[in-house]
Amino acid sequence: MFPKLLHMKNSQSSKTKAKIWVVENNNFVTHSDQLATEEPLEIRLNYPKQTIAVTMRTPGADFDLAAGFLYSEGVIKNQEDIAKISYCVDPKVDGKQRQNIINVSLKSELNPNLTTLERHFLTTSACGVCGKASIESLQIKGFSAIPLGLEVSAEIIYSLPDKLNTAQRVFKSTGGLHAAGLFNSEGKLLKLREDVGRHNALDKLIGSEFLAGQLPLNNLMVMVSGRSSFEILQKCITAGLPIVCAVSAPSSLAVEIAKRFNITLVGFLRGRKFNIYSGVERIK
Amino acid sequence: MFPKLLHMKNSQSSKTKAKIWVVENNNFVTHSDQLATEEPLEIRLNYPKQTIAVTMRTPGADFDLAAGFLYSEGVIKNQEDIAKISYCVDPKVDGKQRQNIINVSLKSELNPNLTTLERHFLTTSACGVCGKASIESLQIKGFSAIPLGLEVSAEIIYSLPDKLNTAQRVFKSTGGLHAAGLFNSEGKLLKLREDVGRHNALDKLIGSEFLAGQLPLNNLMVMVSGRSSFEILQKCITAGLPIVCAVSAPSSLAVEIAKRFNITLVGFLRGRKFNIYSGVERIK
Repeated sequence: MFPKLLHMKNSQSSKTKAKIWVVENNNFVTHSDQLATEEPLEIRLNYPKQTIAVTMRTPGADFDLAAGFLYSEGVIKNQEDIAKISYCVDPKVDGKQRQNIINVSLKSELNPNLTTLERHFLTTSACGVCGKASIESLQIKGFSAIPLGLEVSAEIIYSLPDKLNTAQRVFKSTGGLHAAGLFNSEGKLLKLREDVGRHNALDKLIGSEFLAGQLPLNNLMVMVSGRSSFEILQKCITAGLPIVCAVSAPSSLAVEIAKRFNITLVGFLRGRKFNIYSGVERIK
Repeated sequence: MFPKLLHMKNSQSSKTKAKIWVVENNNFVTHSDQLATEEPLEIRLNYPKQTIAVTMRTPGADFDLAAGFLYSEGVIKNQEDIAKISYCVDPKVDGKQRQNIINVSLKSELNPNLTTLERHFLTTSACGVCGKASIESLQIKGFSAIPLGLEVSAEIIYSLPDKLNTAQRVFKSTGGLHAAGLFNSEGKLLKLREDVGRHNALDKLIGSEFLAGQLPLNNLMVMVSGRSSFEILQKCITAGLPIVCAVSAPSSLAVEIAKRFNITLVGFLRGRKFNIYSGVERIK
């Protein structure tokens, strides 16, 4: 069975304790607080042997993150392309750091074109599309518009934020984690992933479905905290998600590619109100 | 005088019109809306001749963004390191796309070590630290802890969010732009930069001060929308900013390096209340 998931134990917590000062009306009081843990994750490929990515993430669901990242960047296409994923077990590497390094063994005949990937990655520390040399060179080139079929009522859309918030236990105590939730057409939350980075939360979610052999997700919908950008939409397109909802505003380019790939894009979803930027025909 | 800033005209707007559906209590109404513009920006170096970064940004203050990015990544150290910045004027490149490409001419004797930079950039689409092979290889290695000296009252800290919001005219109409504001010790807003990406907004702000020869900013403070991450702190350290305030939560690593570099880190700044995660001694 592929892929093998080995050495999955990660003792790092998604929360970190901190002693802080709370200042209110000029009174200073010390207080114990919980922070969202942020640690680097290095993703290494076995062949060609190289570090393919370093991202700052919240520990947890790291194998999902690695798989989702490799998938949305076009390095792998099918579940079977990964032979094995494991944490680093090199005794020369410090214990905690081993949990910040993931080794991915691709199946031997795959031989992905990483020259292209490397060029794409010559990029920026800024949030958003890291590593796209231009809109034209995007990995979404190989994907088609998402078929119609899924339809949901406005009532179901209204219900998503509460369900996401309720499920976000970590968020409750740190206030610092982004979330991506996968819902079915009845509005049932199927899966939730969290991270300090919005893109990581979505990579974790899609990667988990990828490893389970569930892509494309043509009958499901996703809700993300924060806003929707070009890259959020790009990842949803590769996963075949027909409906993408966000708490806040989309960017111009998010709307542009949502239209091009026939995605229903919902924003400012709060209370019994939301905006539809593209694909109104899927909302009843 | 260095640097020369040429061909500064960018006709792209920071806002993009869109026709949307507003759904409220199951009523669907069409509506005109403004979105935050998101467009790719490619930063090219003249020598060694190569594309050094592509980021998705909101058009405007592009020269500041390019300078801030190159500075915080350690490619340049002083204002004089840049001989010239200009938009692409290649007639073979489509008109609009020319405004998405910036050429940076470094002074001829600079010859930065881009091999290191390229390795750092072999990285991820996820938000956060793109391109840091490890915590140890960070550009902040060359920087020292920020000296004490600046002290501000809690009253001044309370006042920052309102001043930032008032100045964010673009935000008012799109709801989609992150902001970074530079304040003096009396709480006066000196400069504001906005972008769809948090990191870009900060790069624009710091880049603007860099081009004006104003670094380090040891007597000023910055406030950013959203949360503070490792990379937000990293950029503030390179700019010498002693006080960093954010609307939302910091990550564990943001607090860790704030402490290491003696930065006063404020979070959850709302109304007459905020948290201090590091450097309480600067707040009176």
